[in-house]
Amino acid sequence: MATPWHNRYALRTEGMGSSVIRELLKLTEQPDVISFAGGLPAPEMFPVEEFKQASDKVLAEFGAKALQYGATEGYFPLRSLIVQQMARYGIHAKEDNVLLTSGSQQALDMIGRLLINPGDKVLTESPTYLGALQAWSAYQARYVTVPIDQDGMRTELLEEALRSGPKFMYILPNFQNPGGVTLALERRMKLVQMADHHGIPLVEDDPYGQLRYSGEHLPPLVVLDHEHLESRASDGHGYFEGNVIYTSTFSKTLAPGLRLGWIVAPVEVIKRCVQAKQGMDLHTSSFVQMVAYEVAKDGFLEQHVRRIRQVYAHRRDVMLAAMERYFPDEVQWTRPDGGLFLWAWMPEGMDAAELLKIAVDTQRVAFVPGHAFYPDGQGKNTMRLNFSNAAPEMIEEGIRRLGAVLKGQMAGSKRAEKVVERVLA
Amino acid sequence: MATPWHNRYALRTEGMGSSVIRELLKLTEQPDVISFAGGLPAPEMFPVEEFKQASDKVLAEFGAKALQYGATEGYFPLRSLIVQQMARYGIHAKEDNVLLTSGSQQALDMIGRLLINPGDKVLTESPTYLGALQAWSAYQARYVTVPIDQDGMRTELLEEALRSGPKFMYILPNFQNPGGVTLALERRMKLVQMADHHGIPLVEDDPYGQLRYSGEHLPPLVVLDHEHLESRASDGHGYFEGNVIYTSTFSKTLAPGLRLGWIVAPVEVIKRCVQAKQGMDLHTSSFVQMVAYEVAKDGFLEQHVRRIRQVYAHRRDVMLAAMERYFPDEVQWTRPDGGLFLWAWMPEGMDAAELLKIAVDTQRVAFVPGHAFYPDGQGKNTMRLNFSNAAPEMIEEGIRRLGAVLKGQMAGSKRAEKVVERVLA
Repeated sequence: MATPWHNRYALRTEGMGSSVIRELLKLTEQPDVISFAGGLPAPEMFPVEEFKQASDKVLAEFGAKALQYGATEGYFPLRSLIVQQMARYGIHAKEDNVLLTSGSQQALDMIGRLLINPGDKVLTESPTYLGALQAWSAYQARYVTVPIDQDGMRTELLEEALRSGPKFMYILPNFQNPGGVTLALERRMKLVQMADHHGIPLVEDDPYGQLRYSGEHLPPLVVLDHEHLESRASDGHGYFEGNVIYTSTFSKTLAPGLRLGWIVAPVEVIKRCVQAKQGMDLHTSSFVQMVAYEVAKDGFLEQHVRRIRQVYAHRRDVMLAAMERYFPDEVQWTRPDGGLFLWAWMPEGMDAAELLKIAVDTQRVAFVPGHAFYPDGQGKNTMRLNFSNAAPEMIEEGIRRLGAVLKGQMAGSKRAEKVVERVLA
Repeated sequence: MATPWHNRYALRTEGMGSSVIRELLKLTEQPDVISFAGGLPAPEMFPVEEFKQASDKVLAEFGAKALQYGATEGYFPLRSLIVQQMARYGIHAKEDNVLLTSGSQQALDMIGRLLINPGDKVLTESPTYLGALQAWSAYQARYVTVPIDQDGMRTELLEEALRSGPKFMYILPNFQNPGGVTLALERRMKLVQMADHHGIPLVEDDPYGQLRYSGEHLPPLVVLDHEHLESRASDGHGYFEGNVIYTSTFSKTLAPGLRLGWIVAPVEVIKRCVQAKQGMDLHTSSFVQMVAYEVAKDGFLEQHVRRIRQVYAHRRDVMLAAMERYFPDEVQWTRPDGGLFLWAWMPEGMDAAELLKIAVDTQRVAFVPGHAFYPDGQGKNTMRLNFSNAAPEMIEEGIRRLGAVLKGQMAGSKRAEKVVERVLA
């Protein structure tokens, strides 16, 4: 046998730990497993017929353009559509502030390339989005964390975390992945004030903002940042001259298989991102961008998002009700107002990774153990549950099965405790 | 005004010099300019009708799969199709050796991420592909170069260049971008021997290998490397356990607007690439991969490449004949056996960037000044001309105009020389 490449050529390995989620997805893809593990949208909601019409139109009318090289910034009509869509959420950007990316994962990669030098610290929630950790560990980032509770990041702990001098802060304010929690308004305001005061940029990751099922819409950090800077100075801060880089995606509202996300930022930052993207993949598929634009335009996207909200809200309710019914009292969980995920935690000392193995082997039900979402190595007793992908009756059945596994484990650990007590007595 | 971001936040700038080619493309996009600047395929050759049928089929039969998240490795049938296609060129890979990328630009980015630590040297041809320099400068690579002549990299100079200890060598063996030259067989063999002898991997970039218009096909480095290792050792080297990472693309054979390329490498390297890609963009668009597969399969791609070869061979011939007719004797150029580009050089001391400005302003014709393709700062008197994009009559007319600009400049510099001679006399 030949000498392995890593012995011959010193391949770099920073941040290349295989994605726990994606490896798990492989294990849980057997057809008889009810999986709450992935972050997959409901495939039956994809507007397949509209995509068919849009593809036909794009190829018939603009075939040569759709198949040719395009601008790194993205397809201009799609950037305009994003500008209009964001304006409805109070974000008043211009097309120059918008860069199309190959999924919002690429936006995270780009942000890392722009901001992280080896050893730089990134301040994140704990737990936080695994894909961000994967993207930034490749740039040899280190992490400083602030825990979350039901109202999102515990900003009363922020001051202390900022003492370590992070390069930027990373927040998912709406229906956080993985926690399912939403950052409260006063905490949002505190965050933008602290970002301004300490001179530290905020990266606002908002893939789920449009998928709210209950409660009131809260203003994005990028809007609050603008208002804060306006109130503080009279020198005419425009939108996107502030401290926030905002990113979102079409993955949850149209289809993840497109790989279409975007970044909104000051023009100066967008220009640097464009330069970075030229080295990364030149531009995102012209064909995909044009098809997505044809599907989304003329109000279709808003109608479609309303339909998704109804379906996912019901699935969330089914999952929460089933958890009340089937989960043992010792397990607690979040009650998300939107998004795709909820978060559950078992008593300290229990191991969700072990539980997953038992759950798949004995009950054919799967979830994601929470440990990988903690940059600080916590969370062994936590799990993430997705409620968007499975049909309601499968959610009910899957939670029933998972409840049985949990009760079995709890009973087992109680018996073990009693044994320990007897031995020690 | 707000403080600029780069003053506030120390944005990283390594390798972010804006792409000269892409900025130039903007200048030369005015409709009355005949542009030989880009690297665009002929849009009238895009198989638009086949793409329409394929999109319809994919959405009708596999809509939910095409729009959902997919495997990072890529769509399996497309990986199989690539395996079959490469086998016709003597490259016997398995699906496990193939990773789909978002254009071959992403393959270059990935190779940088895998192999380059800040300050590492990369050995390239001089001139070499600008996109590779852009990708790797982001990882703070430095460059050591070996000049090319009509037979490609001058391998008699390789030994000396290798003394600086480069991390890997980067070669475009076929119809090199920008030089248009092809690496001779004995030089290919020397390269793989040296790679083995010095223990330095070879990155073989082959976007144009299928687009040969004259001369005999030459074996890829990855094939020669295998044969060399087989002859040297009896320990059963498989394909892709050797020293070569190979990359190619559908951009020149199907359509660049898809953003579809691939990497072929030892399984161990592919696994690391998959981990890197998870942090970069999770996976390449499922929809695009499935549509490309439906278009390419059942022999269509081969038929289509035969048609492209006929069209581009004619355009190359038209350009070469026009250059013979219209260019001044002092200008020299390469005569490519394939690909999209040829390379021309003016007498030392002339500046192609200045010439471009005059050419666009006075004659409405454009090319790319060659300087940016030289990691070693050479090439101010060189230019790259693309012959795939413009129609034959526009090629003839554009070269006539460019010849006029060149003759004007030559006459001007001869007059200036005479003035200098008189003054010095």
